[in-house]
Amino acid sequence: MAEALVVGDPGDPRLADYTALTDVELRRRREPAEGLFIAEGEKVIRRALAAGYRMRSMLLSEKWLEAMRDVIEAADAPVYAVTPALAEQVTGYHVHRGALASMQREELPGPERLLAGARRVVVMEAVNDHTNIGAIFRSAAALGMDAVLLSPDCADPLYRRSVKVSMGAVFSVPYARLARWPQDLDAVVRAAGFHLAALTPAPDAVDLGALPRHERLALLLGAEGPGLTRRAQQAADTRVRIPMAHGVDSLNVGAAAAVAFYAVAGSGPEPGVTSPVS
Amino acid sequence: MAEALVVGDPGDPRLADYTALTDVELRRRREPAEGLFIAEGEKVIRRALAAGYRMRSMLLSEKWLEAMRDVIEAADAPVYAVTPALAEQVTGYHVHRGALASMQREELPGPERLLAGARRVVVMEAVNDHTNIGAIFRSAAALGMDAVLLSPDCADPLYRRSVKVSMGAVFSVPYARLARWPQDLDAVVRAAGFHLAALTPAPDAVDLGALPRHERLALLLGAEGPGLTRRAQQAADTRVRIPMAHGVDSLNVGAAAAVAFYAVAGSGPEPGVTSPVS
Repeated sequence: MAEALVVGDPGDPRLADYTALTDVELRRRREPAEGLFIAEGEKVIRRALAAGYRMRSMLLSEKWLEAMRDVIEAADAPVYAVTPALAEQVTGYHVHRGALASMQREELPGPERLLAGARRVVVMEAVNDHTNIGAIFRSAAALGMDAVLLSPDCADPLYRRSVKVSMGAVFSVPYARLARWPQDLDAVVRAAGFHLAALTPAPDAVDLGALPRHERLALLLGAEGPGLTRRAQQAADTRVRIPMAHGVDSLNVGAAAAVAFYAVAGSGPEPGVTSPVS
Repeated sequence: MAEALVVGDPGDPRLADYTALTDVELRRRREPAEGLFIAEGEKVIRRALAAGYRMRSMLLSEKWLEAMRDVIEAADAPVYAVTPALAEQVTGYHVHRGALASMQREELPGPERLLAGARRVVVMEAVNDHTNIGAIFRSAAALGMDAVLLSPDCADPLYRRSVKVSMGAVFSVPYARLARWPQDLDAVVRAAGFHLAALTPAPDAVDLGALPRHERLALLLGAEGPGLTRRAQQAADTRVRIPMAHGVDSLNVGAAAAVAFYAVAGSGPEPGVTSPVS
């Protein structure tokens, strides 16, 4: 594909992947069912491609044609050039970043496969906020977590907002879903040799800094507000807390996650110790 | 004041404090000039009052009258009861939280006064995003930072969005503005006995975990994206970095701030050591 196709009709069926992007409920159902996700903006699109995702099509404002020239030439998919006004008619919002790509989802790996090569994993329970999911992935990537596991009721990391907030980290940190909750914390995660630490603001939990080193550590995070369920906490080996100043609400989940990732990053085996998984 | 006053005219001059709340540029100019700020939602309003701010007036949807009964009865200011539709006409948006209060600003303390009683302070340079400012205050409060100093070009912590994201932490963590930048880093902050540590992703900076203990530590943070200016970094005693995984963009500034606050919280004098400032 070397040329962009100019499209002038918002009802053109070739733009179907991009319709009603602001209708969160609709898109949440449609995208997994149709096997696609939307990458928004030059940087995120390039990262999705670099991570190996296949492009279904791309929708560009004309002024982005030059910046995306190499992507267009390499693309094995149609590229549609539209006016900003038409992009807004189709998607339902003003596409500030001027470039959208519809990408093909890939089958998620099984959690066992992810865990086989990992030493530090995040397990999220019922995190439904797309911004929080994206922020947690971004911090997980920056702070060296190896993988993410999701409870069955977590939201979709490939939803457009999650992808954007993560700055594409949802492409680089491998993730999987646990099928049975909380049973798989034991049957899958502990069975793979992981120590399970549940993050909670409870005053009787162990200070994060006092958590003993574990060669394989799974850090459990709950949603903003309710936090981890009692069932998930009971399924863990340890409950850990971030020491907080008196009288203050807990940190937001993104900040708490970043602190916890930082704290456990240094709690693995000493450098030079041979790990059976490396 | 024991009764709410029902107001039915969106042009009523008594509602002037609440007009055009979605016009960020207008409100940024108006609110400091008129000496007010807006607290939104029951929890934030209660925290502003608990922190000692004086209420100018309150605007409530009728269904909030009952929940706010004690606040209304204690208020030394008029309370206006309106329909949700009228609240939207006045403010320009649908007021989900159903309660807004216009609060009187207080004069900020001088930075010297704040520093006299502090051991761990945050210094922000040119942080202009209201969400980021709020998130940093929230983490600062939770993780025990004693005070915040702002460069002259930082945005307003009392802007509605900052207040909301901070969950009211902008009321509990004292803050001040430095007048001369970056000169006051030396003339005010270092002069008060603080070691200045500049947070940067630069690979040649010292790992945060290797920062020696300092009885008084000021942590410098820049804006998302550009980070600290060279001038600010040069004015610091040390440049520190959060160790990051290879090939990953830096953390967002809120996550980086939380990690840094956590890391330096433990780097003060040992418990039991008498500090000249305590």
